[in-house]
Amino acid sequence: MKVVVDGFGGDFAPVEVVEGAILAVKQNKNLTVVLTGDKEKLEKVIAGRNERIEIVDAKDAITNDDQPTLAIRQKKDSSLVRAFDLLKDNDDVIGLVSAGSTGAVLTGAILKIGRIKGVSRPALCSILPTVVENKSVMICDCGANVDCKSEHLLHFAVMASSYYSIMNDVENPKVALLNNGAEEHKGNELTKTVYPLMKNLPINFIGNAEAREVMTGDVDVIVTDGFAGNVLLKATEGVASGMSKMIKKEAKKNPFAMIGALLMGKFRGLKAKMDINKYGGAPFLGCKKLVVKTHGSANRLNFCNTILQVVKLHEKGLNEQIESFVSKQLKTEMTND
Amino acid sequence: MKVVVDGFGGDFAPVEVVEGAILAVKQNKNLTVVLTGDKEKLEKVIAGRNERIEIVDAKDAITNDDQPTLAIRQKKDSSLVRAFDLLKDNDDVIGLVSAGSTGAVLTGAILKIGRIKGVSRPALCSILPTVVENKSVMICDCGANVDCKSEHLLHFAVMASSYYSIMNDVENPKVALLNNGAEEHKGNELTKTVYPLMKNLPINFIGNAEAREVMTGDVDVIVTDGFAGNVLLKATEGVASGMSKMIKKEAKKNPFAMIGALLMGKFRGLKAKMDINKYGGAPFLGCKKLVVKTHGSANRLNFCNTILQVVKLHEKGLNEQIESFVSKQLKTEMTND
Repeated sequence: MKVVVDGFGGDFAPVEVVEGAILAVKQNKNLTVVLTGDKEKLEKVIAGRNERIEIVDAKDAITNDDQPTLAIRQKKDSSLVRAFDLLKDNDDVIGLVSAGSTGAVLTGAILKIGRIKGVSRPALCSILPTVVENKSVMICDCGANVDCKSEHLLHFAVMASSYYSIMNDVENPKVALLNNGAEEHKGNELTKTVYPLMKNLPINFIGNAEAREVMTGDVDVIVTDGFAGNVLLKATEGVASGMSKMIKKEAKKNPFAMIGALLMGKFRGLKAKMDINKYGGAPFLGCKKLVVKTHGSANRLNFCNTILQVVKLHEKGLNEQIESFVSKQLKTEMTND
Repeated sequence: MKVVVDGFGGDFAPVEVVEGAILAVKQNKNLTVVLTGDKEKLEKVIAGRNERIEIVDAKDAITNDDQPTLAIRQKKDSSLVRAFDLLKDNDDVIGLVSAGSTGAVLTGAILKIGRIKGVSRPALCSILPTVVENKSVMICDCGANVDCKSEHLLHFAVMASSYYSIMNDVENPKVALLNNGAEEHKGNELTKTVYPLMKNLPINFIGNAEAREVMTGDVDVIVTDGFAGNVLLKATEGVASGMSKMIKKEAKKNPFAMIGALLMGKFRGLKAKMDINKYGGAPFLGCKKLVVKTHGSANRLNFCNTILQVVKLHEKGLNEQIESFVSKQLKTEMTND
C-alpha cells in the first residue's frame, strides 16, 4: 500500500514533508510513501533513512503564483503533476497528499483523476475543533469552489455527511447550511435557493447555522460555498492564533514567575486542542481516488497525520460509500422532486 | 441634541435599552434620549428616572420573523418605524439606535431616511478588536448587502476608509479586500472584478487580506460583501467565545484555588479586550442621517456606548465627510477610468 506525497508542496518543503513521511511509515508497517520532487534535494534530507520511502524524480515545482490549469497541463515534470500521474497509473497507490496550491491540487484532481459519477464538483472538507472534548466540526466546501450553484451545495452536503459519518461512527450527523441568520428566509440568493432543497436530501439537515455556532459542538457538518467556507476556516485560525498571542502576553506580564509558568502550561494544553496540525488535511470529496490537501504551513506532524488519514479513509472505504450514497440516493431523492 | 432609540429592539429589550439610555444621558449633559415603544412597559423600567429620557408611545414591535420591507411599510405603530419617523421629521434628533432586525433597520434607513447622494447601498460597518493594544479593525459590509456587485464594494471601501479615518485620527487607513488568497488572481467572480478597480480609488488600498489576518492589526479596514463579512464577524465572535469557555474550563480544573483565581483574573482582562459590547454598534454608512445598528444580544453597556457613539459621529461630522468624499472624489476617480 502506497501513498504518494508532493515533496515540494507547502512552505516548509521538502524538509517537513520528508520528516513527516518518515514518521508515517514508522507508524504503519504496511505503508510505503512515494515522494515526488528533486531527487538530490530529497535524498539529502532523507540521509539514508529510506526504509519504505521511495523517490520519483521531478525537477519542477508548482507555486501559488502559477495559474492552476496551465500549471497542471504544462509543468509535466513538477512534483505535483508527477504525483498525480503516479496516483492515476498505479493501483497500489491509494491516495495523494499535497500542501501545495489549492487551485493546482483541485485542478490536478479533476483533470488527472476525475470525479465520482454523479458528483458535480469535488469539495474541500476541513475539520475544526469545537469546545466539546473530542468533537470536531467539518466545513464543506472551504475553498475549492468559490462560485457555487445550488446543485453543488447539495452534493457537498451529501458527501460531507457521508465523510463525517464514516470518520466519527455517527449515523446521522447534523448537517447545517452556513447563513447570515437562523431563520429560513434569511440569506443570499444561493442559500435561499438551497434551503428548501436541502430539506429533501437523505441527510439529517438541521437548518441554518450562523458562523458563531461553528465551535459550539451542536453542528457536525457546515455546508457552504467555498468563498464563505474559506473565510470561516481562516477566521477561526486567525482568532485562535490572535487570542493565543494575547494569552501569552498576559502570562508574561505576571510578576510571579511560577504563576506565569503555570499559565503557560494551561495555555499549551489549550493550544494543543486548537492545533489544526493534529487533524490532518482536507480531502477533496468526490474524486475517484483519495486526494488530500493539507495547509501550506503544515509541519512534519501534520504531514504524518495526513498520510495516515489517507490510509484510514482508504481502509474505511470512504469513496465507495460516497459513490453509493451520491449516485444512488441523491439521484433518487432529486428525481422525486 | 436628541438620539432616538428603538425601545423594543434586541433580545433584552426593554430593560437593557432603558438602562443603557439612562447611563448615556448621565455621561452627556447635553443629551436627551427618546425611547420608542409601549409607554407603560417603558415607564415601569424607568421607574421615575426620567431626566432627559423621553418616551414616544408605539404599541407594536418588529421581530426577526417579519419580512423587513413589509414590516417597515405596514407596522406603522412599531417601535422601530416610530423611531425612524422621529429621526426623519426632527432636526434636533441626530441619530437612531436599534438592536432589532438588521433587515428592518436597513430597510427603514433606506425607505425613511434615504441614501447620501452618490452612495449605491448603505453598508453595515462593524468594529473588532485586534491583538495590537487599542487598535481595532473595521469590517464593511458585514451583513446589510448579502448579494453585491463590484460598484457596491467600491463604495463600501471609500465610506469605511472615511469612517476609520475620522474615528481613529488616521490619515490613510489601510484598506484591504477580503479574499481567499493574497495573490491578485485569487478570488470569486466578485473579488476578481473589484480588485483592479480598488487600485484606482483615492484610498490606501493594500491588496487582498485573508480572514486569518483580521486580528493581526496590520489591516485597518476590510472590505467585503455582506454575506462573507457576516461570516467573518460571527466566526470571530464564536471562536472568541468558544476559546473563553475552554480557558474557564482549564482554570476550574486547577487544583490550587489561588492559581485558578489568578487565571480567571487574567481571563477576565482578556475577555474585556474581546468584549464587542464596548465598541458600540455598527453604523449604516451612507444614510442621510446617522443610523446605528447594535447586536441583538446587546446589554446596557452596549446601548450606552452606541448612543454615545452616535453623538461622537455627529460631532465629528461623519456624514458630511462621507458625502464630500463619495460624491466628489469617487465620481472623479471613476470618471477617469
